[in-house]
Amino acid sequence: MELPVRRKRGRPPRRLDGGLETRQALVRAGVALLTEQGFCATGIDEVLSRVGVPKGSFYHYFTSKEAFGAELIDSYATYFDHKLQRWLGDRRRPAVQRLGDFMADARRGMERHGYRRGCLVGNLGQEMASLPDAYRARLIEVLLGWQARVQRCLEEAREDGELADDRDCAQLAAFFWIGWEGAVLRAKLEQRAAPLDCFAQGFVALLGTPRPGADLSALTREG
Amino acid sequence: MELPVRRKRGRPPRRLDGGLETRQALVRAGVALLTEQGFCATGIDEVLSRVGVPKGSFYHYFTSKEAFGAELIDSYATYFDHKLQRWLGDRRRPAVQRLGDFMADARRGMERHGYRRGCLVGNLGQEMASLPDAYRARLIEVLLGWQARVQRCLEEAREDGELADDRDCAQLAAFFWIGWEGAVLRAKLEQRAAPLDCFAQGFVALLGTPRPGADLSALTREG
Repeated sequence: MELPVRRKRGRPPRRLDGGLETRQALVRAGVALLTEQGFCATGIDEVLSRVGVPKGSFYHYFTSKEAFGAELIDSYATYFDHKLQRWLGDRRRPAVQRLGDFMADARRGMERHGYRRGCLVGNLGQEMASLPDAYRARLIEVLLGWQARVQRCLEEAREDGELADDRDCAQLAAFFWIGWEGAVLRAKLEQRAAPLDCFAQGFVALLGTPRPGADLSALTREG
Repeated sequence: MELPVRRKRGRPPRRLDGGLETRQALVRAGVALLTEQGFCATGIDEVLSRVGVPKGSFYHYFTSKEAFGAELIDSYATYFDHKLQRWLGDRRRPAVQRLGDFMADARRGMERHGYRRGCLVGNLGQEMASLPDAYRARLIEVLLGWQARVQRCLEEAREDGELADDRDCAQLAAFFWIGWEGAVLRAKLEQRAAPLDCFAQGFVALLGTPRPGADLSALTREG
C-alpha cells in the first residue's frame, strides 16, 4: 500500500498537511486491517492505536465507521486499479504473459505479508450480510472494473493471435475474477502460495482450450 | 440443513431428548447464521433468540463460543459430505454430469435462500485472521475431503473415457474447489446465480482441454 504522503521536505508540516497525513495514515492502516481481517472484526480503536492517534479523534476525520469503510474501498480500488494497469497495460510483453505477471506480483505480495493479507474486496464481499447495504453495489462495481481490465488484456491476446478468434473474453475475464478471489481466500487459509499457482495454471490451460464458449449451461441447470 | 431430530411420536420428550433437541436446534441455527454472516458477526445471543432458548443457557450445552464454532464446522462438514456423496456417488449417471448435478443442486440451494447463505467453510476461511487458530487445520481438512470426492468422480470420468487419460484429476479437483468457493462468494455478493453458472461452464470447458496438466508454472513464477 504505497499511497503517497504529502510532506514538504525541510519544513515542518503545516496544520492542514498534518491533518491530511493523519487522515492518510488512518486510511492506510484501515486498508491493511481490512485486507487481513475484514470489516466486522476491525474496530476503530485498533485503527487509531495502530496509527498512534488518540482515541476519540476518529470523528474529526470521518463521519462514521460506514463512511470510513466506503473510503477504504475506494482507496483500495484505486490502488489496485493502478497495479492492474501497470501489469496488464505493458504492451511490450505478450498479453497472456502480462496476466501471468500480475498473478506473480500478487503472489509475491501475499508471500511478503506472510499470507495474512488477502483481497479487501473479497473479504468485504464475504461479509456483505453484515455490512452497510450501500457497499454491495460499490464492491460489484470495483470487481467489474478489474474484470474490464483483464478482458481488454485478453482481447489484445486474441488480436495478437495468442488466443483463438472465437474466445469470449468477457466470459473468461469474469471466470478469472471469480476463481482468483477463491484462490486468494484459499491461499490465506492455507498460508501458502499453492492455491494461487493451482488456479493460475488451470486458468492459463483454459486459455488454450479450442472452444470454451460452448453452451454447457444445461449441465448445471437441469440437474 | 436437515439434521435429524430425535423425537418419539405420541409421547412427550424425556428430559434428555428435550436437551438433545435444544442442542441440535442451536447447532442448526448456528450453521444457518454462519453460512450467512460468518463467525465474527454472529453473537451467541442471536443464536439463542433464534431458537427461543433463554439467554444464559448456552453454556449448559457448549463450553465456549469456540467449542460451539468447532461443532458447527463439523456439523456442516458432515452434512455437506453427504450431499456430495449423494450427487457425485450416483454411478448410474456419467461422472461429469454428476458434477453438474452437484453444482445445479448448490445453485438451487442458494436461490432458495435468496443468495444470503454461502459456504460456511468459505466464510470462516475468509475470517480466519480473527478465528481460533485451531479452526485453520480443520477447515483445510474439510476442503481436502470435499476435494477427494471430486477427484474420485473425475477419476471415474477418466476411466469411462469422458476425460483424457493424461488429465491430473487431483489438480483439477483442487482447481474446482478454489474456484467454486470464489463463485459462491461472488453469487452471494451479487445475489444471483450468474457467477455460479460462469464458473460451472468454464470448469466443464476446462475438462475438455486436451492437456491442461502442461507445466505452465513458469508463467506465474518468473513475472
